[in-house]
Amino acid sequence: MPTQKTYASIITIGDELLIGQVIDTNSAWLAQELNKIGIIVKHRVAVGDIWDDIWQALDEESKQASIVLITGGLGPTADDITKPLLCQYFNGNMVVDQPTLDHITYIFEHILKRPMIERNAKQAEVPDVCTVLKNERGTAPGMLFKKDNTIFIAMPGVPHEMKWITHNHVIPYIQNHFQTGAIAHRTLLTAGIGESFLAELIKDFEESLPEQIKLAYLPNYGMVRLRLTGWMEDKSALEKLLDTLFNTLKIKVQDYLVIDEDQPMEVAVGKLLVANKQTVATAESCTGGYIAHLLSIHPGSSVFFKGSIVSYANEIKGSLLGVPKEIMETVGVVSEPTVIQMAKAARVSLNTDYAIAVSGIMGPGGATNEKPVGLVWVAVANAERVIAQSFNFRFDRRRNIELTATNALNLLRRMIVEKS
Amino acid sequence: MPTQKTYASIITIGDELLIGQVIDTNSAWLAQELNKIGIIVKHRVAVGDIWDDIWQALDEESKQASIVLITGGLGPTADDITKPLLCQYFNGNMVVDQPTLDHITYIFEHILKRPMIERNAKQAEVPDVCTVLKNERGTAPGMLFKKDNTIFIAMPGVPHEMKWITHNHVIPYIQNHFQTGAIAHRTLLTAGIGESFLAELIKDFEESLPEQIKLAYLPNYGMVRLRLTGWMEDKSALEKLLDTLFNTLKIKVQDYLVIDEDQPMEVAVGKLLVANKQTVATAESCTGGYIAHLLSIHPGSSVFFKGSIVSYANEIKGSLLGVPKEIMETVGVVSEPTVIQMAKAARVSLNTDYAIAVSGIMGPGGATNEKPVGLVWVAVANAERVIAQSFNFRFDRRRNIELTATNALNLLRRMIVEKS
Repeated sequence: MPTQKTYASIITIGDELLIGQVIDTNSAWLAQELNKIGIIVKHRVAVGDIWDDIWQALDEESKQASIVLITGGLGPTADDITKPLLCQYFNGNMVVDQPTLDHITYIFEHILKRPMIERNAKQAEVPDVCTVLKNERGTAPGMLFKKDNTIFIAMPGVPHEMKWITHNHVIPYIQNHFQTGAIAHRTLLTAGIGESFLAELIKDFEESLPEQIKLAYLPNYGMVRLRLTGWMEDKSALEKLLDTLFNTLKIKVQDYLVIDEDQPMEVAVGKLLVANKQTVATAESCTGGYIAHLLSIHPGSSVFFKGSIVSYANEIKGSLLGVPKEIMETVGVVSEPTVIQMAKAARVSLNTDYAIAVSGIMGPGGATNEKPVGLVWVAVANAERVIAQSFNFRFDRRRNIELTATNALNLLRRMIVEKS
Repeated sequence: MPTQKTYASIITIGDELLIGQVIDTNSAWLAQELNKIGIIVKHRVAVGDIWDDIWQALDEESKQASIVLITGGLGPTADDITKPLLCQYFNGNMVVDQPTLDHITYIFEHILKRPMIERNAKQAEVPDVCTVLKNERGTAPGMLFKKDNTIFIAMPGVPHEMKWITHNHVIPYIQNHFQTGAIAHRTLLTAGIGESFLAELIKDFEESLPEQIKLAYLPNYGMVRLRLTGWMEDKSALEKLLDTLFNTLKIKVQDYLVIDEDQPMEVAVGKLLVANKQTVATAESCTGGYIAHLLSIHPGSSVFFKGSIVSYANEIKGSLLGVPKEIMETVGVVSEPTVIQMAKAARVSLNTDYAIAVSGIMGPGGATNEKPVGLVWVAVANAERVIAQSFNFRFDRRRNIELTATNALNLLRRMIVEKS
């Protein structure tokens, strides 16, 4: 019997999702994990803490999918109505689950070291028609229900609790109970070419792709990611086919290729530095430490990242980075000589192979007649030379900070690649 | 005639949303903007770049809502199928929209300064049954369709383009064509109390709330936001009611109140510093510049934030922050004496009223027998004193970085409040 595609839907519950107070990161994470085991997410839906809307979502999604994952609404407060609703939806009665009660008691006694109140104990009550999925990371357990040919799994919305339950219960359960084919992706990152031009460059490649393989363009902050996705029954045949196609694609875009993985710019830079046994520091004005944050957020970054001098105030550009007062008063702090001095000084002060320096006007304030919002100077230095470049971004502050960081890191990347 | 509630649905299109490659931030933003004008978002759904799934989503959502907003799938590449689909769905024919073509030509000639290719010109083709919504931020225009009593508005998925079209076309159109009641929210942020205990503390308040007002608990990184939401016909009556209730709530939670707005911790700290005409700097090890980034991402931060020394490498803790070698070699870099010295040195070196210092083990590597992943030391200094505190977080790297930043900023906040 051929493997059939298994479809999943994700329901996220909470008014905060519908008034825009919270960005839903759980769904993206769940989709990634399901993909890894060959499950296709067909639909994602967000509903408020409203009885009828949740009920209807359960009805609708179970028509489309054999696996319905539900997050949110399981907390101890009055706005959390998911549990009583599920109890009624699946015709159950609320009962105390003793292992869950023991676990909650343990958490309060040994970890939180606070008295437990009735509200907490109530989290141990579950519908008697579900399988309880232990939540080692919190007090609200996961719950698994079956109805006709669909399984429903409800989990708390707190991300690290939801992730723990998914890894320890949901994924193993699905692997044991569903036929799963293979889904695989290959992603690369390009910089320095627009989406349309990239599409022209790889037009022949795209048109020659076999039916099972899809190509997607993901533009973001002046870069474009390209993703090949395939679903096949046979995992090794799929991987082989994707590898061949991906190699062809890499050659086609080689002049713009940043990294041949689904990783951001800073990871590409980090890998180059590790490979060359080199180090980097930053001297940041307008980005306020954001480039340092990007370089240090990934595990293992202490091998190549040594630190940063964030000179947000002009006074600090003078005192810690030696930018002469005359330069700041004549050509100004958003200028080529300023970032060149910042890069040189940071490299020496932090004793690294490379340094990145940035100074610019991120907005909304700070613009002058000659220097509009979005003007940024970037410099990259090594022991032999310093290169500097200006950019004219526009629009809003956060986007300008992102674009400045990405382009500064890309300038460093090019300097490293040209040298080696 | 009484004002009726107007419901909206948001459809986001793109395989990247269903394989978890991209987090959907557009929906949250759109929901906020709709809320501001009294429109209730009832449903949000994400579908892939699949003809039948998009078609079905249009059918389904129009049953639930009078306004259907659609983002994504309008790019110039082959995976973007939304436009031909909408053309067929609304029984139209593709025609060239001359103003759009002129706009695209202008962008290529004057802004991108690159030759325009056919693929770009094709973005000026639109279904003849739509109203074209000019996109000043990009090449793909927005499109407005009507069917029965529902309007459908399709916009590109690139956030700053979508936002521009929303502000300049969508919101004014809705305000002119729909009856809208008033929705309003009041949000405050608490720290230092768990969700269950908070719920006990305000139990009476919660039970006495009028029917039109809902209370929501939003826990995140050890803090809990509380939100009151109401929908009423009369905006000023609603605002008055909410103000009264919100004042009561603030008094109930006053011991834990960080800020009485929907703002993060760093904004609360920034406001206090501005009010006191004081400044801050950071000395960061394990957070790698993240606290500096938080303090500088909001407009106007140059008034109180002067800069940072990110001493990711231990060598830098010695050379730039004067942590003695003996301390690092005996009690270690994750210790009380280290962060006290870092905070003192940063305050002097960056010439500020306050300094924050952090040093910890964010994981997954770096733990020892005595110092597990999640151990963090935090210090806050002013001219008179330094206070230091250790925390034991657990779990993953990003969460530890977030929790460290939040708790360090809260320690500073408490020092400022106690002083003033």
